[in-house]
Amino acid sequence: MTNIKEGDEIYLVFDHKQNYKLKVVTGEKFHTRKGFIELGDLIGKPFGMVVTSSLGMAFYVLKPLIRDRVLKTDRRTQVLYPKDISYILLQMDLGSGSQVVEAGTGSGALTMAMANSVRPNGMIYSYDISERHQKVAARNIDKSGLMPWVELEIKDITKGIPNKDVDAVFLDMSQPWKVVRSAWDALAGSGVFMSFSPTIDQVMKTTEMLNSLPFIEIETIELLLREITVAPNKTRPRTQMIGHSGYLTSARKVIELLE
Amino acid sequence: MTNIKEGDEIYLVFDHKQNYKLKVVTGEKFHTRKGFIELGDLIGKPFGMVVTSSLGMAFYVLKPLIRDRVLKTDRRTQVLYPKDISYILLQMDLGSGSQVVEAGTGSGALTMAMANSVRPNGMIYSYDISERHQKVAARNIDKSGLMPWVELEIKDITKGIPNKDVDAVFLDMSQPWKVVRSAWDALAGSGVFMSFSPTIDQVMKTTEMLNSLPFIEIETIELLLREITVAPNKTRPRTQMIGHSGYLTSARKVIELLE
Amino acid sequence: MTNIKEGDEIYLVFDHKQNYKLKVVTGEKFHTRKGFIELGDLIGKPFGMVVTSSLGMAFYVLKPLIRDRVLKTDRRTQVLYPKDISYILLQMDLGSGSQVVEAGTGSGALTMAMANSVRPNGMIYSYDISERHQKVAARNIDKSGLMPWVELEIKDITKGIPNKDVDAVFLDMSQPWKVVRSAWDALAGSGVFMSFSPTIDQVMKTTEMLNSLPFIEIETIELLLREITVAPNKTRPRTQMIGHSGYLTSARKVIELLE
Amino acid sequence: MTNIKEGDEIYLVFDHKQNYKLKVVTGEKFHTRKGFIELGDLIGKPFGMVVTSSLGMAFYVLKPLIRDRVLKTDRRTQVLYPKDISYILLQMDLGSGSQVVEAGTGSGALTMAMANSVRPNGMIYSYDISERHQKVAARNIDKSGLMPWVELEIKDITKGIPNKDVDAVFLDMSQPWKVVRSAWDALAGSGVFMSFSPTIDQVMKTTEMLNSLPFIEIETIELLLREITVAPNKTRPRTQMIGHSGYLTSARKVIELLE
Repeated sequence: MTNIKEGDEIYLVFDHKQNYKLKVVTGEKFHTRKGFIELGDLIGKPFGMVVTSSLGMAFYVLKPLIRDRVLKTDRRTQVLYPKDISYILLQMDLGSGSQVVEAGTGSGALTMAMANSVRPNGMIYSYDISERHQKVAARNIDKSGLMPWVELEIKDITKGIPNKDVDAVFLDMSQPWKVVRSAWDALAGSGVFMSFSPTIDQVMKTTEMLNSLPFIEIETIELLLREITVAPNKTRPRTQMIGHSGYLTSARKVIELLE
Repeated sequence: MTNIKEGDEIYLVFDHKQNYKLKVVTGEKFHTRKGFIELGDLIGKPFGMVVTSSLGMAFYVLKPLIRDRVLKTDRRTQVLYPKDISYILLQMDLGSGSQVVEAGTGSGALTMAMANSVRPNGMIYSYDISERHQKVAARNIDKSGLMPWVELEIKDITKGIPNKDVDAVFLDMSQPWKVVRSAWDALAGSGVFMSFSPTIDQVMKTTEMLNSLPFIEIETIELLLREITVAPNKTRPRTQMIGHSGYLTSARKVIELLE
Repeated sequence: MTNIKEGDEIYLVFDHKQNYKLKVVTGEKFHTRKGFIELGDLIGKPFGMVVTSSLGMAFYVLKPLIRDRVLKTDRRTQVLYPKDISYILLQMDLGSGSQVVEAGTGSGALTMAMANSVRPNGMIYSYDISERHQKVAARNIDKSGLMPWVELEIKDITKGIPNKDVDAVFLDMSQPWKVVRSAWDALAGSGVFMSFSPTIDQVMKTTEMLNSLPFIEIETIELLLREITVAPNKTRPRTQMIGHSGYLTSARKVIELLE
Repeated sequence: MTNIKEGDEIYLVFDHKQNYKLKVVTGEKFHTRKGFIELGDLIGKPFGMVVTSSLGMAFYVLKPLIRDRVLKTDRRTQVLYPKDISYILLQMDLGSGSQVVEAGTGSGALTMAMANSVRPNGMIYSYDISERHQKVAARNIDKSGLMPWVELEIKDITKGIPNKDVDAVFLDMSQPWKVVRSAWDALAGSGVFMSFSPTIDQVMKTTEMLNSLPFIEIETIELLLREITVAPNKTRPRTQMIGHSGYLTSARKVIELLE
């Protein structure tokens, strides 16, 4: 990891509530309620350092992580949490060079995580029917510097997916079963289909459709994440927990079914 | 995704029990109980196709995924499951170019998943005190084609980590707290520390040590994965479930602590 | 708690595998592979004592608990675990005097737990279509001494429930929705309906029927029980876990619906 | 179940927020914001009926259940939920005639549930060091009509339990390990010890103490309850969930240990 340089995005952290993402530009000041920071002064210093504002307020200067972006940018009703996003990346086998179709784009949280996984040689083709969504997503992805590995398009893919021979198709939409056939067409043989659905009714319909086409290894799981408080005489799981985000259904395309 | 070519590793799948991983070499035959397959015949065909042996047994020809390798190769007592591995990759922010220290190597399952995430520009430095482990791991990683992004070494890192300025350190060892200080030394500022521990006693000791050094965002979680059977009139979570694999503790290095 | 007396049922425990339930009868010997125990010698001694066989094998003499009976007697495919049984007893508000309809009887595990809760003034009316089930259940309940609070009958209650004004109706059957209307007829106003179903499909149909009749507080839950190993440096949840037994749906009868 | 009679406690339910528990007294009016109800008019009518106020607001007239009382009365920091209370009742084998020691009393929620289980022939001896707690508990238990089966006392039982030969001892206190020896003294042979603790540190200390005395079947579990939303095209676990209330540790007293 290199030191901070001109144009880097940084993450200024005071605490869980007061933290800011911004770009380092020589000559610019970053203003907070408790004084400003001269951004050019950070250049050449290590990430992880402490910087103090003109009025003595101290901040950590962190490098923004994908998971920071995910948690900050996602604003859709049905949120994809890091637990789900990470499982999707591995289950779809993403790595440098992977070609992926995503729909819908939503706020771009998963799009960024996928783009980070497929760079420098892959591409995410991300579709959404909402122009507003794609504007939000474009802004988020732009800031992250991951746009070179993303193609955004406003399109209703229940009417077909324009791509061919992709390694994976990921769906986060209300009627994923309507895209299963198009997903089969778009996927290369051995490629991975995945769908995220909050309700079991959606999972049932999607699975029924997957079963009617040459897909194998059709499976559905859900992930529960428990946060643990660790402190002397206070170690215990947290009282509040996210009980459900959604089900993850996956399958692999084959050219034809045995028998 | 391209078609099958000379030297590709393939995954021949008859069912959950009868499946084989092998390399495509023109002129070689792959023998099963129910006849052989002429491997050269596969070249130029698409992954996902069905191939039939000399005695009429049909197989799917799949491209091996990282998750297939993980599930097939891991033979350590404390198994890292895909749910844990995927979370580790995202939490440590791995992507092309990341430099990572891992200890111990174990069977190399996580090593491969990490190598796949950091290629083509990153590197995994993986240490283990057991020569036997590293032999097993080397064989597994070799087969996967990911060895260019892995450096294996037999070493006891409780006595220090030779690397500097790495982006992440991952520990899967019985006494991770003994390496926390060395991990701080090895990490670049803003870099991520992670540890996987089956017992809460280990988590407590590791967390205590993290709290005594310039680390922030210290947190522990565990992941529960539920498999769902989806079929008409039979939709339900599976009866048997893995109730616990281990806790995942993570933190980020800062240069110094505020106050 | 009184000391052991003539006719008491006792639970001889050597370890998790070798343990026996039997009745104390003066003059009788209980034979094990490692010698016999003179049962009359136990009379007047305290429960929890250690008794030694003629060949020196030592056993704990415990009082059988309802939960011991539940775990020992249940042999149905879809098992009701103590976690589910206990929740059912509280949710149905059972106490001395409660009148309850149960179908099916199965092995009688829940029947016994309910009978223990409603004695000395209540009654469990338990129906099953299988004569074989009821024979097994009758034998189990007889041994427990709880038969005075149970009436068993071989009957298909999808054709109606003969009881009126009962406090609770519990269903553990493959098509519970077919009995919801009869359950309403059998329940007193304010009485509790409950159903245990392994699949979500059953829950959906049962809930739809409950919604069509004067029932309120309609809800479905599931319970997950985690066993924790507690020992120095080994404290952790167990690796294996029951991931799902079934869903518990409950509701309360009202005479008519508001609006 | 009989019809409503003079002196019965009733539960008037408009919805989840507007509901009231009160006693039926002829000649009294119950006033709400939307008119009053003439309570004497309810006598002889069935529970579960709908009653309409003088200004036309309709309510269900329900019989209060133990679980309603539990959810309404508990005001302690560490709440015992119905999932935990029900498991405690079964695990301790409560039934008519059981003699139980409880500490602390807290708001009396568990006390009531236990009293309901042991009536008409058992008794709950409940201790608390806080006079304020016992006043709140006394008021709650009085209203429920279960006081005949409860003896409340302000006492610090880390200095000893005055009872002997009880069937079960239940502890919900910050340092349960300090009472394990006294619990052994108070229990009859074969009797059940239980303790509820939010932190794993408490569980470790309590288990260590149990292991040092003649206790067998020492075990710790935790229960997770998931609420399921069931509705056409919306069936799914709820988003928010209680991730942890506490651990339940149990054991059985024997007179001496084998070997």
